[in-house]
Amino acid sequence: MSLSEFQVIERYFARGSVTREDVVLGVGDDAALLQVPLGHQLFTAIATLTEGTHFLPDADPGSLGHRALAVPLSRLAGAGAAPAWATLALTVPSSEEPWLERFSEGFQRLAHRFDVQLVGGDTTQGPRSTTVVASGLVPDGPGNLRGQARDGDLIYVTGTLGEAGLAILAQQRMLRLPVADRRLALQRLEWPEPRIRCGLALHGLASAVTDLPEGLAMGLDEILKASEVGASIYAERLPVSARVRARLHDARDWDLLLTSGGDHELCFTVAPGKQRQLEARFSRLGESCTWIGIVERTPGLRCVAGDGSTV
Amino acid sequence: MSLSEFQVIERYFARGSVTREDVVLGVGDDAALLQVPLGHQLFTAIATLTEGTHFLPDADPGSLGHRALAVPLSRLAGAGAAPAWATLALTVPSSEEPWLERFSEGFQRLAHRFDVQLVGGDTTQGPRSTTVVASGLVPDGPGNLRGQARDGDLIYVTGTLGEAGLAILAQQRMLRLPVADRRLALQRLEWPEPRIRCGLALHGLASAVTDLPEGLAMGLDEILKASEVGASIYAERLPVSARVRARLHDARDWDLLLTSGGDHELCFTVAPGKQRQLEARFSRLGESCTWIGIVERTPGLRCVAGDGSTV
Repeated sequence: MSLSEFQVIERYFARGSVTREDVVLGVGDDAALLQVPLGHQLFTAIATLTEGTHFLPDADPGSLGHRALAVPLSRLAGAGAAPAWATLALTVPSSEEPWLERFSEGFQRLAHRFDVQLVGGDTTQGPRSTTVVASGLVPDGPGNLRGQARDGDLIYVTGTLGEAGLAILAQQRMLRLPVADRRLALQRLEWPEPRIRCGLALHGLASAVTDLPEGLAMGLDEILKASEVGASIYAERLPVSARVRARLHDARDWDLLLTSGGDHELCFTVAPGKQRQLEARFSRLGESCTWIGIVERTPGLRCVAGDGSTV
Repeated sequence: MSLSEFQVIERYFARGSVTREDVVLGVGDDAALLQVPLGHQLFTAIATLTEGTHFLPDADPGSLGHRALAVPLSRLAGAGAAPAWATLALTVPSSEEPWLERFSEGFQRLAHRFDVQLVGGDTTQGPRSTTVVASGLVPDGPGNLRGQARDGDLIYVTGTLGEAGLAILAQQRMLRLPVADRRLALQRLEWPEPRIRCGLALHGLASAVTDLPEGLAMGLDEILKASEVGASIYAERLPVSARVRARLHDARDWDLLLTSGGDHELCFTVAPGKQRQLEARFSRLGESCTWIGIVERTPGLRCVAGDGSTV
């Protein structure tokens, strides 16, 4: 990539960027000196998206810029971290200015919403891919942990499940959806919403929290293993849109809810005595969460169907 | 990439990794909770290497693992940061176990030497490339700055210049080298040595420091612009090996010394009164540095040839 192309890209990312007081010094465009405030730890997460594996060649560049940052921000949400900084490695086959402009817009709009400053970037020529390292701040102390779920705790999930999985099936032509439904499902896959406010709201309230990059079953299983407990979740209680519910015909469709990671929701557990406080806090924030099951002493994860049978 | 291939890769990077006490919690394999010690700031740098642009398809995987980490560590050296953590995004066309094993060995050997813990990794399938974000700790205070060079300060460079540039010319078949010379020059390009100890030794001693990712001329120019001064450097004083000196026939060869970034040396300025202390400190460390010029009030960078003419 020639220097002038490189400069074009730098321009897109420098323009309209967030400026934070804890960025002591930007050093060139690929390095920075940062101040972690007293009494805080740093939580850092990395995510790569590559063409062909994570997105199609004709993906909307704006959504790609958004997703590149949203995916690692979702990890921060699970940790209860307040987003602070990001670094971006962007590989593009050539410097197509409209593409870069729209990618940058998607990235920066999300960065602004969560006060994330881009503190380093490296742009290279090659097949399209993005790697973002997002860093956030967590107050010293236990933070949002995974290993403190106890027998009798209630299991919750934020938002709704299954839309992103539906979109992937539609993209792979394994499922036909009405045009409007397809568009809404794709919207959910391509513009995921990091549950940062939910993660922060769970400080001191949840006994265990995880984000769900590999879907509900794997995420909840990590909590159960770390806490040395088991759980039952109730299939009928899983929060799904009418669009998704209409597709829940067979076992493969139920898998969609349990194994699709693209929704980027959080799963967490709370002691029964804290249920009212939790629901009040989420309601004040305008965020939704749904009680889906209960932590039990017996190891393993059981999904209980409407007729009482275990799936 | 299938899960089992993914697990193979994780195994290579988990095995024999550095373990640091300031890594509070590893969260899965792509996220971590980190503790920046009191009185320190965080310096972070990102670098991407892609096949075809930064390395040839037949590059030694061990050297590639080394370089992937060495390049951002060199930025830390320039900032006077003590290395602490790294995240690695690795894209490979397929899971070739011997390749991955050697890449990992090269990466981990360097990580061990500088006490760097790998705190996050993401592995995807695609054309070969690596992105590493390296983070290090700098004591609160001015650190190694760029903008404090003053008229009369002495200009130094660490190590030697030009070997990596020679290797690139040989790789591009623009230059024929004797086999032994070619091997040694390639060694320098493929196994760069981050000048971390030099960067730490310059705390409180240098008036301005920079690493040289784009070569001496661009690096020194950044110091001069930030400090609002100019400089003369003396061509005859530039530290070069006999191998490089033998090739210095024409202007293009001199360009090699001024514009080749692959050597990953540091350039810095010191007040004349600190020259003795500086040279003693480097000598104790067993690190070399060479006085190459002087900071002047007149803006711009001048390279003075042996006969007194300005190049």
